[in-house]
Amino acid sequence: MKKTALIVAGGQVDAGQLAEQARQVRSEGGLLIAADRGLEALRRLNLRPDAAVGDFDSVSEETLAFYTADPAIRFERHRPEKNESDTELAFCIAREEDVKEVRILGATGTRLDHVLANVHLLKEAFDLGMDCCLLDSHNRLRLAAGRTVFRRAECPYPYISFVPLTMEVTHLRLSGFKYPLYDHHMVLGVECGHCISNELAEEVAVLEFAEGLLLAIESKD
Amino acid sequence: MKKTALIVAGGQVDAGQLAEQARQVRSEGGLLIAADRGLEALRRLNLRPDAAVGDFDSVSEETLAFYTADPAIRFERHRPEKNESDTELAFCIAREEDVKEVRILGATGTRLDHVLANVHLLKEAFDLGMDCCLLDSHNRLRLAAGRTVFRRAECPYPYISFVPLTMEVTHLRLSGFKYPLYDHHMVLGVECGHCISNELAEEVAVLEFAEGLLLAIESKD
Repeated sequence: MKKTALIVAGGQVDAGQLAEQARQVRSEGGLLIAADRGLEALRRLNLRPDAAVGDFDSVSEETLAFYTADPAIRFERHRPEKNESDTELAFCIAREEDVKEVRILGATGTRLDHVLANVHLLKEAFDLGMDCCLLDSHNRLRLAAGRTVFRRAECPYPYISFVPLTMEVTHLRLSGFKYPLYDHHMVLGVECGHCISNELAEEVAVLEFAEGLLLAIESKD
Repeated sequence: MKKTALIVAGGQVDAGQLAEQARQVRSEGGLLIAADRGLEALRRLNLRPDAAVGDFDSVSEETLAFYTADPAIRFERHRPEKNESDTELAFCIAREEDVKEVRILGATGTRLDHVLANVHLLKEAFDLGMDCCLLDSHNRLRLAAGRTVFRRAECPYPYISFVPLTMEVTHLRLSGFKYPLYDHHMVLGVECGHCISNELAEEVAVLEFAEGLLLAIESKD
C-alpha cells in the first residue's frame, strides 16, 4: 500500500472531516503532519501529530507547550522570514518519509492568496512525484496530468469540474460524463460549458488530454 | 471618468459591501448587472439592476417575478446548457455598454470550481480590454499584466500577495514593499517567501515584471 500523509494546514478545518481523515490515515499506517496553525485544529480534537512544522507565530503558547512536551513528535521550528510556506515544509517531511500520497486539510478559507498558493502546491507535489489532493467540506481538488479515471464508488461529491492550471489544455476528451467532450481545446478564462458542474453518467468515466495541466475538482453545494 | 459596472454573481455576497459598492457605482453613473443567482442578493437589499442575465434556475419564482415585471430592467434569459458562464454573459453586456472597469461581487464561496473559474475571468476581462477586480469581504483580486502601482490611500486591506497565473513570471521586481524583490524568477507552485502577505512600506509601491501574468491579491485575515 502507498504510504500516506495527512497534512493539516492553517486554514479552515472541519472537525468531523479531520477526525475521519486522521482515523483513516492512522489505520493505513500513514503520517499526520501539522503545518503551523494546523496544530490548533489537532489540539481541539486531542490528536497527536507525528510531525509539526512552521514558525508557529500564530499558534497559542498553550498548544505549543502541549505538543513540544511530547518527545515523540518531530518538531521543526523555522524563522518567520523563511522562503517556503508551512505546507511546503510539510511536503519536505512527507518526502523524507517516502510518502507517496498526500491529503491536505486546512488549505482553504477566507484568504484567497492562501487558497490559490495552496492550489498551486498540487503542481509542486506532482513534480515531487506525490499524489496530492486538497480536501475541505465541499471540495476535493486534484491535479490531472493526463489520463485520469473517475469511479463512482470513489467520488465523494456529485459534481466534477475541470479548470486549467496552464494557459491551454489541448485535445481534452471527457467520456462517461453527463456532458461529454471530444477533442476540446481549453483556454484559461474561457468557459466551455461542459467543464463546470459536470457529473458522472457511468460507473467509470475517463478524462484525457494531450498537453497542459488540469485541476479536477469534485464538489457539492 | 471610466464607465464602471458592478456585476453581482451567485456566490457569497456581503450585504454591507454590496450596498456600498452599488451606491458607489450608481454615483459614478455606472451599471449594476445581476448574474443569475446574484439577483437574490440584490432582492434582499431592494436594489434594482440595469440588467440581469443567466438561466435563473436557482432564482426563486418570487424574485424572478419581481424583477421581470420591471420593464426598465434588461432581462436576458439563457438556456441552462449554454456554453458561457453567467458572469461571462454579464461581461458581454458590460462590453456592449462600453464599460471600462468591472467589479465582481459574489465570485467567491464554498465551491472552489466556481471560485477558480471566476479568478480566471480576470484573464478574459483583460483580453476584452476591461479593468476587472473580484471583491469579497476579505479580498480584492486583480490581474497585473506588467507594471502596476499600489498607493496606500487606495489599498483596502493590509496584505498584498502575488500569485502567478502563468507557469512562470520573469524578472519580478517589488519596490516600496516591506519585503522587496529584485529580478526574481517566479515559478507556479514554488513559493518565494516574499510574495504572500507582503505589505506596503511606502506611500507608493511598484510591481514590475517582464513576461507572464500575475494575480495581485489584497487581503485581510
